[in-house]
Amino acid sequence: MLCEGPTIILVEPQLGENIGMVARAMANFGLGELRLVNPRDGWPNEKARAAASRADHIIDGVAVFASLADAIADLNFVFATTARPRDNFKPVRGPTEAAQALHGRFARGEKTGILFGRERWGLTNEEVALADEIVTFPVNPAFASLNIAQAVLLMSYEWMQQTGAGVKPPEHDLTPATKQHLESLISYLDEVLEARGYFRPADKKPRMLENLRALFTRPRFTVEELGVLRGVLASLERFSPKNPRGAGAPEERTRPGEQD
Amino acid sequence: MLCEGPTIILVEPQLGENIGMVARAMANFGLGELRLVNPRDGWPNEKARAAASRADHIIDGVAVFASLADAIADLNFVFATTARPRDNFKPVRGPTEAAQALHGRFARGEKTGILFGRERWGLTNEEVALADEIVTFPVNPAFASLNIAQAVLLMSYEWMQQTGAGVKPPEHDLTPATKQHLESLISYLDEVLEARGYFRPADKKPRMLENLRALFTRPRFTVEELGVLRGVLASLERFSPKNPRGAGAPEERTRPGEQD
Repeated sequence: MLCEGPTIILVEPQLGENIGMVARAMANFGLGELRLVNPRDGWPNEKARAAASRADHIIDGVAVFASLADAIADLNFVFATTARPRDNFKPVRGPTEAAQALHGRFARGEKTGILFGRERWGLTNEEVALADEIVTFPVNPAFASLNIAQAVLLMSYEWMQQTGAGVKPPEHDLTPATKQHLESLISYLDEVLEARGYFRPADKKPRMLENLRALFTRPRFTVEELGVLRGVLASLERFSPKNPRGAGAPEERTRPGEQD
Repeated sequence: MLCEGPTIILVEPQLGENIGMVARAMANFGLGELRLVNPRDGWPNEKARAAASRADHIIDGVAVFASLADAIADLNFVFATTARPRDNFKPVRGPTEAAQALHGRFARGEKTGILFGRERWGLTNEEVALADEIVTFPVNPAFASLNIAQAVLLMSYEWMQQTGAGVKPPEHDLTPATKQHLESLISYLDEVLEARGYFRPADKKPRMLENLRALFTRPRFTVEELGVLRGVLASLERFSPKNPRGAGAPEERTRPGEQD
């Protein structure tokens, strides 16, 4: 299931390392089918396999073609990737939009492909003309060089992004402690800080207590977090450098909110 | 204008080529500031410059740090990238969502960063603990290896993709204190709790300290909130019911983090 999706077609790739990096990027994002048109150094290519970093299933399945027309003969819809929009009246898409379009076609049973040009100078106008539409990447105009492995990575990433098939990060859904738990902490602080002269002058106490409540409410601490916090406060309250925990103080056995 | 945005921080990168590819990926998508923590082969590194493929402005501006804490001291908000979600209660975002959050913070004038780990084994739990939230990539679970240059490329790409897109307002409108401020609180707690025998048994101390850091990192306290918190802790640490504040204790005049 994770090896369906558009076929990646590299036109006259030069370096085996790049072919391998392309295979690795495809594997990262669940694409499986790689085709090469006239790879400069022939095929198979051991440098490609080494750079593929165990994406052997893709390297083993590579098909080599003598012409681009042959390589796309069985496909229903083809995107060409270019660094700049060309003057040839084809629709130009961004990667996200292109991935959405590819998913739509995939769902209808179409076979699709994405063309990537040579390392040095990309695709010729004749090659772009064989495609249906163009994809360009929203790169910094002042620094637009993107190598083919990076371009394949971005398209593969967008393919998987639009699939929802990747590992979805779990929702961060921490349950805040109940208000009763929180109020227990505030009462405790009120008591131990009062005993230490923290609330001074006395007429400022309501305002200071309000600040404390705001401070400990905003983070929406969990029960576990409140436990750790209580342990820290209790350690400062009950022990001192001269009488540390474990020095025989009777409180030790009943110390609340102990963290371990 | 195209060189604003989050700082990229590589923790103990090994290969100069990767550092160069990272610089190139940043340049492609308009990021400009690269920091290195203890690069294995030192700095400057000619292999990095060669691989950067003329992203010289980024290579020339690289800053090297002896510790991750130093490298993020001036930042308000930090993402850690990890291959897998970790068990440490930090929110986990996808790249798109993370880029939106970074834009929101950028618009408010916050300094942000994204951490990337070593080629072989990423970030340690202690390093992840220094970050506010986690980014993971939606990779094929069967083939999840993503090299650091690719990971930086995807985050840089998403940063540019989300430029001008619906900027996601952060959940609250408070600027987190810098990491330096936060670390100062953690160091203080380490010291005063150590003196009280809090970290017991001794071999659990690293884990307990990590819990404390997580506890005080997650709320993204503001400078003002850290001040109030420090005042509470200092009150418990320095005073007692028998010797409250205002009873003539010499510490009173130098009590830090005083609230009022």
